[in-house]
Amino acid sequence: MAALFDTIAAVSTPPGKGGVAVIRMSGERADEIAASVFVPAGNFEYSSIEPRIQVYGFIEKSGERIDDVLLTRFPAPKSYTGENTVEISCHGGVLVTRTVLEALLSAGARCAEAGEFTRRAFIHGKLSLTEAEAIGTLLDAEGKWQMRLTSEPARRRLSQRISDIRSSLIQAMSSMYARIDYPDEDLGDFDDEELLRELTKAAGELSALKDTYRTGRAVTEGVRTAIIGKPNVGKSSLYNMLVGEDAAIVTSLAGTTRDVLEHTAPLGKVMLRLYDTAGIRDDKKLDTVERLGIEKSRKMIEKCELLFTIFDASRQFDEEDEAILRELSKSDAVKIGIINKCDKDMAFDKDKLEGHFDKVLSISTLDESRAIASLQDIVDELFTDGKIDISRDAVIYSARQHSALVRALEFLDAACDALTSGISQDAVSSDVERALGALGELDGRAVGEEIVEDIFSRFCVGK
Amino acid sequence: MAALFDTIAAVSTPPGKGGVAVIRMSGERADEIAASVFVPAGNFEYSSIEPRIQVYGFIEKSGERIDDVLLTRFPAPKSYTGENTVEISCHGGVLVTRTVLEALLSAGARCAEAGEFTRRAFIHGKLSLTEAEAIGTLLDAEGKWQMRLTSEPARRRLSQRISDIRSSLIQAMSSMYARIDYPDEDLGDFDDEELLRELTKAAGELSALKDTYRTGRAVTEGVRTAIIGKPNVGKSSLYNMLVGEDAAIVTSLAGTTRDVLEHTAPLGKVMLRLYDTAGIRDDKKLDTVERLGIEKSRKMIEKCELLFTIFDASRQFDEEDEAILRELSKSDAVKIGIINKCDKDMAFDKDKLEGHFDKVLSISTLDESRAIASLQDIVDELFTDGKIDISRDAVIYSARQHSALVRALEFLDAACDALTSGISQDAVSSDVERALGALGELDGRAVGEEIVEDIFSRFCVGK
Repeated sequence: MAALFDTIAAVSTPPGKGGVAVIRMSGERADEIAASVFVPAGNFEYSSIEPRIQVYGFIEKSGERIDDVLLTRFPAPKSYTGENTVEISCHGGVLVTRTVLEALLSAGARCAEAGEFTRRAFIHGKLSLTEAEAIGTLLDAEGKWQMRLTSEPARRRLSQRISDIRSSLIQAMSSMYARIDYPDEDLGDFDDEELLRELTKAAGELSALKDTYRTGRAVTEGVRTAIIGKPNVGKSSLYNMLVGEDAAIVTSLAGTTRDVLEHTAPLGKVMLRLYDTAGIRDDKKLDTVERLGIEKSRKMIEKCELLFTIFDASRQFDEEDEAILRELSKSDAVKIGIINKCDKDMAFDKDKLEGHFDKVLSISTLDESRAIASLQDIVDELFTDGKIDISRDAVIYSARQHSALVRALEFLDAACDALTSGISQDAVSSDVERALGALGELDGRAVGEEIVEDIFSRFCVGK
Repeated sequence: MAALFDTIAAVSTPPGKGGVAVIRMSGERADEIAASVFVPAGNFEYSSIEPRIQVYGFIEKSGERIDDVLLTRFPAPKSYTGENTVEISCHGGVLVTRTVLEALLSAGARCAEAGEFTRRAFIHGKLSLTEAEAIGTLLDAEGKWQMRLTSEPARRRLSQRISDIRSSLIQAMSSMYARIDYPDEDLGDFDDEELLRELTKAAGELSALKDTYRTGRAVTEGVRTAIIGKPNVGKSSLYNMLVGEDAAIVTSLAGTTRDVLEHTAPLGKVMLRLYDTAGIRDDKKLDTVERLGIEKSRKMIEKCELLFTIFDASRQFDEEDEAILRELSKSDAVKIGIINKCDKDMAFDKDKLEGHFDKVLSISTLDESRAIASLQDIVDELFTDGKIDISRDAVIYSARQHSALVRALEFLDAACDALTSGISQDAVSSDVERALGALGELDGRAVGEEIVEDIFSRFCVGK
């Protein structure tokens, strides 16, 4: 437990050279350590520095002034972590930032681990677990819908929603307990029927929240998507079109480890995780290298949840298209057939695609904006729920959140069944307790150390 | 002039993903723009936010809450730029940071150019030009001596030193003018002799400051250094030894555009700009590729100011060593002969090096720390002035500073000559005025727009 509450420090701004860098320090000894390395510029003592005021001074190490900085104290509990926190804004050179951090470390702070500040914020009740998760996703956000779903209002909404459902369950339970413990008191008309109504209502709300998962996941984690088709049908044109303007964000993220074949491309609300594939054709007459490429394309098809299959409107449906339909039939992915080059004379027999696709559309990559708009409408319709307003509704998006809700619902359904079939109130209350436990895992009130570990290990150092 | 004083904004922290990013906005409309996008969290108005207090709230764009942030007001003149400045600390995701910046830009701020904040600080008299230059160098610092020379105390010292010399010159001049204008008044005993004494003293101080250039330059800009020698004498061992522990800083700066063959390696106070070269040998019998490599080594020798020439103690001085001495004779660089592998039996005739080197030393790369210590002593001695204490003295380091001082000195010397040879006081005063002009260029009180442009264009955006 000592390691959990010692004083930690890290550079919170991105690595590399900038004008300014921010070093954050949190823990019981934060002020003591800061006071030992900070020399105020002017006639004041460290102890007189008011909370949240940025004061100017110098960081000293071994009697040498390393840098002039702005320092801010955030005394507990009014800080990000809920602990005594000190933030130092120094010059953003790589070496100078590192040297200021080293001054704090040699004065007694410990290097923070990835996500340790946010983890402490969670431990001290400043954030629910879903809020902490959302901040992690926000830092990685590459599309505006991803950002919306993890922005402060959305984070608060989800946390509040879970908390509200929890409260109504707890209230229903205490009414029930009161009725059991004090049968003679007049405790209003809260009977089994009323209880069932309350539990059913909570179950309905949980179920609605659970059902936002498909949308939330498509928006944040994204949809693994492959563009397939025989050679020269316009796969690369579509790829470039999708990985265009908006996807330029991706290139600004150089350095994130990611398969070079994968590009993120926001399309409407959905974040596509786009894979380029080699053109697939009958491989009897091919050499080894091309065969390997096609083998890879086949694996991609297995791996993806969405397949854009492209055909050429100006050419007749042929054996190669036929081969691709055969490949497709093995996959459970959502399949969109795209007939490209519709600006040319139609030679393609559209009927051949009948029964093979969830949707078929005709486009011309010459008219980019129209092609993207049609594709976007279809993908949004297939992967998001039009009734969900991401800017207003509570939405879940992680597998962890989803599975906790599934469990809570199972227990709640069991409680309702128990109640209707007249089974003992003990059984009902133990089921509701279990449902509350699952909800507690969801927002972090009751959650295993391993899950916490897993969530915060995905953060960067300094957050 | 409008463009000089409109309101600018930029991300001041390094690019990329971090926990926190800082966006800085400066200019007359900074508060107005910030107030239009910032929604305080809590019951207070933007206008009630006290200077330098970090307040929590939200950045809104088109009615949508983008991020929750900490905002700080730095009203003029108590800000980095001397203008109204607002700093916003938001979540450090790439997209979220960009979106917060975009909110400021669409509310009326303009994207800051590289160095524009510091340039405004200079224009508004918050920094002298030498201080601004030093901050630029500090952000790039890769060695602790570089950092020391550009840290706040050193920046202030240099600025103060120039200012002091300027003041004493101005005082001497006004005494002289007073004596000319009011010959009958009793203005103390400030006569020509006294004036000469003052000007000579100032010249001596300027000269001492000018002489710090060699040291300052070696510490900050560094010394272009090549390691040369015939194949297999230990060039790479020395190279790796020098680009070791300390130079690991270099790798953390990946992405700075730099010739791959160049590595910075702090050695004592001196920053070596180290070039690896191909082994040089007689090229009559060589193939084209190796010949090109050796041609490149020759060019390196021409380009460098310091040459580490390595010989093998265990082998006899041979034709190839001879060829290298011939190459060396064409260069004006400082030459250090290094006899390596001294742990082995000595077969090398040291006398052959006589007259070819500024220093010769024997090392064994097997004893790294000793080899580095000897080399460091020699390089420090050859490139820095032992009488200069970098932690206490005012030191210049840029060619611009040096040439301004050279000019100031020339004018001052001319003034002293004029005074001793009894030439009219007009000539004396006009020379001193010119010397003051050169000093004004040095600290930026009077400096051409082009020079200012050049200095600040080297900064990063956001500083």
